[in-house]
Amino acid sequence: MEYQHILEEIHTTLQNSPQKGTVASYIPELGKVNADHLGIYLFTLDGKEYGTGHFDIPFSVQSISKVLSLAKALDFVGTDLWKRVDVEPSGNPFNFLTLLELEKGIPRNPFINAGALVISDILLSHLKNPKEDFLNYVRELAEDSSISYNEDVAASEKATGYRNTAAANLLKSFGNMEHNVEDVLDFYFYQCSLSMNCRQLARTFYVFANSGKNVSGKTFLPPGLVKRINAIMLTCGFYDEAGEFAFEVGLPGKSGVGGGIVAVLPGNYCISTWAPGLNEKGNSLLGMQALEMFTTKTKLSIF
Amino acid sequence: MEYQHILEEIHTTLQNSPQKGTVASYIPELGKVNADHLGIYLFTLDGKEYGTGHFDIPFSVQSISKVLSLAKALDFVGTDLWKRVDVEPSGNPFNFLTLLELEKGIPRNPFINAGALVISDILLSHLKNPKEDFLNYVRELAEDSSISYNEDVAASEKATGYRNTAAANLLKSFGNMEHNVEDVLDFYFYQCSLSMNCRQLARTFYVFANSGKNVSGKTFLPPGLVKRINAIMLTCGFYDEAGEFAFEVGLPGKSGVGGGIVAVLPGNYCISTWAPGLNEKGNSLLGMQALEMFTTKTKLSIF
Amino acid sequence: MEYQHILEEIHTTLQNSPQKGTVASYIPELGKVNADHLGIYLFTLDGKEYGTGHFDIPFSVQSISKVLSLAKALDFVGTDLWKRVDVEPSGNPFNFLTLLELEKGIPRNPFINAGALVISDILLSHLKNPKEDFLNYVRELAEDSSISYNEDVAASEKATGYRNTAAANLLKSFGNMEHNVEDVLDFYFYQCSLSMNCRQLARTFYVFANSGKNVSGKTFLPPGLVKRINAIMLTCGFYDEAGEFAFEVGLPGKSGVGGGIVAVLPGNYCISTWAPGLNEKGNSLLGMQALEMFTTKTKLSIF
Amino acid sequence: MEYQHILEEIHTTLQNSPQKGTVASYIPELGKVNADHLGIYLFTLDGKEYGTGHFDIPFSVQSISKVLSLAKALDFVGTDLWKRVDVEPSGNPFNFLTLLELEKGIPRNPFINAGALVISDILLSHLKNPKEDFLNYVRELAEDSSISYNEDVAASEKATGYRNTAAANLLKSFGNMEHNVEDVLDFYFYQCSLSMNCRQLARTFYVFANSGKNVSGKTFLPPGLVKRINAIMLTCGFYDEAGEFAFEVGLPGKSGVGGGIVAVLPGNYCISTWAPGLNEKGNSLLGMQALEMFTTKTKLSIF
Repeated sequence: MEYQHILEEIHTTLQNSPQKGTVASYIPELGKVNADHLGIYLFTLDGKEYGTGHFDIPFSVQSISKVLSLAKALDFVGTDLWKRVDVEPSGNPFNFLTLLELEKGIPRNPFINAGALVISDILLSHLKNPKEDFLNYVRELAEDSSISYNEDVAASEKATGYRNTAAANLLKSFGNMEHNVEDVLDFYFYQCSLSMNCRQLARTFYVFANSGKNVSGKTFLPPGLVKRINAIMLTCGFYDEAGEFAFEVGLPGKSGVGGGIVAVLPGNYCISTWAPGLNEKGNSLLGMQALEMFTTKTKLSIF
Repeated sequence: MEYQHILEEIHTTLQNSPQKGTVASYIPELGKVNADHLGIYLFTLDGKEYGTGHFDIPFSVQSISKVLSLAKALDFVGTDLWKRVDVEPSGNPFNFLTLLELEKGIPRNPFINAGALVISDILLSHLKNPKEDFLNYVRELAEDSSISYNEDVAASEKATGYRNTAAANLLKSFGNMEHNVEDVLDFYFYQCSLSMNCRQLARTFYVFANSGKNVSGKTFLPPGLVKRINAIMLTCGFYDEAGEFAFEVGLPGKSGVGGGIVAVLPGNYCISTWAPGLNEKGNSLLGMQALEMFTTKTKLSIF
Repeated sequence: MEYQHILEEIHTTLQNSPQKGTVASYIPELGKVNADHLGIYLFTLDGKEYGTGHFDIPFSVQSISKVLSLAKALDFVGTDLWKRVDVEPSGNPFNFLTLLELEKGIPRNPFINAGALVISDILLSHLKNPKEDFLNYVRELAEDSSISYNEDVAASEKATGYRNTAAANLLKSFGNMEHNVEDVLDFYFYQCSLSMNCRQLARTFYVFANSGKNVSGKTFLPPGLVKRINAIMLTCGFYDEAGEFAFEVGLPGKSGVGGGIVAVLPGNYCISTWAPGLNEKGNSLLGMQALEMFTTKTKLSIF
Repeated sequence: MEYQHILEEIHTTLQNSPQKGTVASYIPELGKVNADHLGIYLFTLDGKEYGTGHFDIPFSVQSISKVLSLAKALDFVGTDLWKRVDVEPSGNPFNFLTLLELEKGIPRNPFINAGALVISDILLSHLKNPKEDFLNYVRELAEDSSISYNEDVAASEKATGYRNTAAANLLKSFGNMEHNVEDVLDFYFYQCSLSMNCRQLARTFYVFANSGKNVSGKTFLPPGLVKRINAIMLTCGFYDEAGEFAFEVGLPGKSGVGGGIVAVLPGNYCISTWAPGLNEKGNSLLGMQALEMFTTKTKLSIF
């Protein structure tokens, strides 16, 4: 079956779904988004692209940005990074401090918030103009200079980010944060506020499907690093539902509370979805369904 | 490079490794094994096979058997199984009861001991002669009637299995066990005592590399089920080190405290290793290194 | 005000209470008891006694027996006992295994079930005929040979005691149990099945109000030991509600799921209550209220 | 035996003790104190007072101040306070956030740091000039206007108080903090920085031995409140060692990481000790020994 047809079939089925999940409201600015949006976009490695629904409306990528900051940080410090963050699934919701305390300030993996804060701390040590440089990195990956931060979202998250502030202070108390808590949080909230549409998102993550090369073939990451980042996406990319996603979808991927998901089949394709309603674990409800339908219909997963 | 050559290269490198880990001693019978054994065996889906080292000496597969009992149980009850066991990584060592209590008797996944006990309970409801029927299932998968239980190992584990008995009673207290604790444990210890060599193990798991068909092309499982079992192997197959294995090796696989590991690249190959010395997480130290070297040298992983 | 009058006033107020709690049903035999019973009994150290309500109907003392087995075990092994059990409040419900696992098999205190199982294990090492000898000890304390076990209750608990069996096996796995799991559980269930009425219960615990001497002045325990056992009753005697009891009542005491409570004001009095309905923490609802009213009306608490 | 003689005997024994514990260093300013100090002071309710050693050298009372802020807050809001803080022992070290997260922002008791932060938040709502008013309250209890804050200690704690900042943010995220995190922490650090010598400390806490009246007979608290605060001191006053203190000493009391301890026998006496070296649970090593010796020698405890 042809890809465009499959995407449209999935879109048609899901846009009439009676249950669309709940739009995240803990960041007030995110709560304003309409739950009826649904977009899907697909890049295949043979150079073709396919889209359906609201694939060109920008949304807040939130935690999806953690993959990009991890990639950049690994670029700078290599395997030394793993002295400060582990690579095991967390077995707990995305904002749980308990494990961090039990494990003495070494976050379980770079995709729980505490782990991403350590990554931000590392980037602050290596980027001259952190916000600007990180944005440029993303723009270069996607070859799209229109990608930008949403400062309202960043400000909204900053004003209510008590749990992240708690996590950052706990990391600091364990000696796993070099910079000021305020500076790390500020940079972290900016990264999360990155705004992209489905097409831009899939373009950006193309590098993880293509052994480290972006859509134009420009090399950004060595293949060994891409393999490892994909492994972490698979085991840790969906908060407390990583097993479920691997089980139902069977692709390395990453979700964000803005309702976006991006996933790759290495050597084959990169796909992104956006549907703002979340399930109770904090992942896009329709997005997960769309990807499950896609890998089932195409029989193209890693397993 | 040719596979046989790669296997031998890995074997040569590792057999002289100064650190070989520690042979499991909590089951007295297992503690008698010599730590110097090292075997590797590879089946490719184009019908070829390659072996090196002690690939023909049988060992106790222990937890590796959990994949086979899961497959058989899924065959019987289908997705109903997931009402009694979850599919999320446990984020804790293999014998930890805490999570089981916190989550009210629903084991995190079918590969932690508590989960495997529930699977055994399910099989007891559906197999006429459980021990015999399960053994026959394994023999048919491998097409090898010489595979058998090691009753000394089963007896040894039974005599010292206080933690498993604790887990079984906790499951019973939560109403997640239908049969008698004694019967479930007895059947479980027998499964774990399955004895195979590397070649037999790789033959048996060929079905997970080959979309549900065994070495002779006989269908045992539907492809959708194989995909899901592979997903669980990837996210939960290595106790508290599943992330590390996905990260370093990048294959769905399963380890046992007898020192065995088996892993598959769907559509491509099935590989098994045996080295009795374990690392501190309870996985074969040299086995993990061998598989990491194999996927790095061949560039053949799922990521 | 005169004591008899106070007890009757409390009884009148509470017997019409619209909320009487829920009779424990997890031990089937206990579930048969009528929730309307309410008895109170008071011994003062000047040799007087006062009773009201159903103070002469026997009930199952359950966990209250743990104080008596602790006293007997301390008699045998002295402070060596504290190498195997701690004296800190558990901060968790009475049947929680999590802490036991985290703390490697050293129960938090002798009044959580795991702790009482270790005490039973100790007594098995020192009593010739454990069940008989323990019963005689209690009869001598109370000077009442009519006190006995309720074998139906013991059998009922044995048949459904999966959580206690889990705890015992966990203790065994950590090496903190010398005897067979079955023997320890059997003895433990017998102790819990001790049947007494309020008057017998208050007579038995008189020793903890009277520096170690019973109602006839016979010495059973040295004063230093009594002080310490009273301290443990205060900090650990009410499962997850020890703080609440100290706060509202202000007396060392111990409750059981049979609905009994016994408490002492050292140097002053010993009081017992029985009301089978439990609050959500597993303590007698009306019993706690009766004792709170008693210490408030008499202004006689330790604080 | 006469009290002065007992105190001197204890002092002589302990000042030559080879093990004096470790002076707290996590607040840099506290780390400067000499570990050789040892002071004891006793007020009896018949109007006499006794002292020995360094009883007149001021030290940082730290967590001991939590009892005074609790008393003041109860004065303002009464039993409403218990909607925001529980009264159960924490069963965990004094700076553990895990329980706070598990119990959704309701601190286990008012003496763990999270609980004291909620108390500070309450006081901020009712005191006009919080720091000044609280200091005046303490001065009036002790009738000593020379008592003051140590601003260096407050500043030192503020600069390194990452764990307290984490706790405050976690409370805020659960909606259990009305004021700004910064304001609550600032006030909290000031309270902890209260500086007193043993004599002043015992004078201040006299109110808890004397049913709510201070040394001059002026009423500060109703007897019912005093009873309850004493109960909380007994069950929660010593971090993870409350059981041990009740067990060995048998008095309601409170310790601080500055090395101070104060304890009362209601209706009888108030005693304070100061020895800066702490045991591994964070309580004054020699102070606990001194009080154990005192209640053993005098046979005057609540049990």
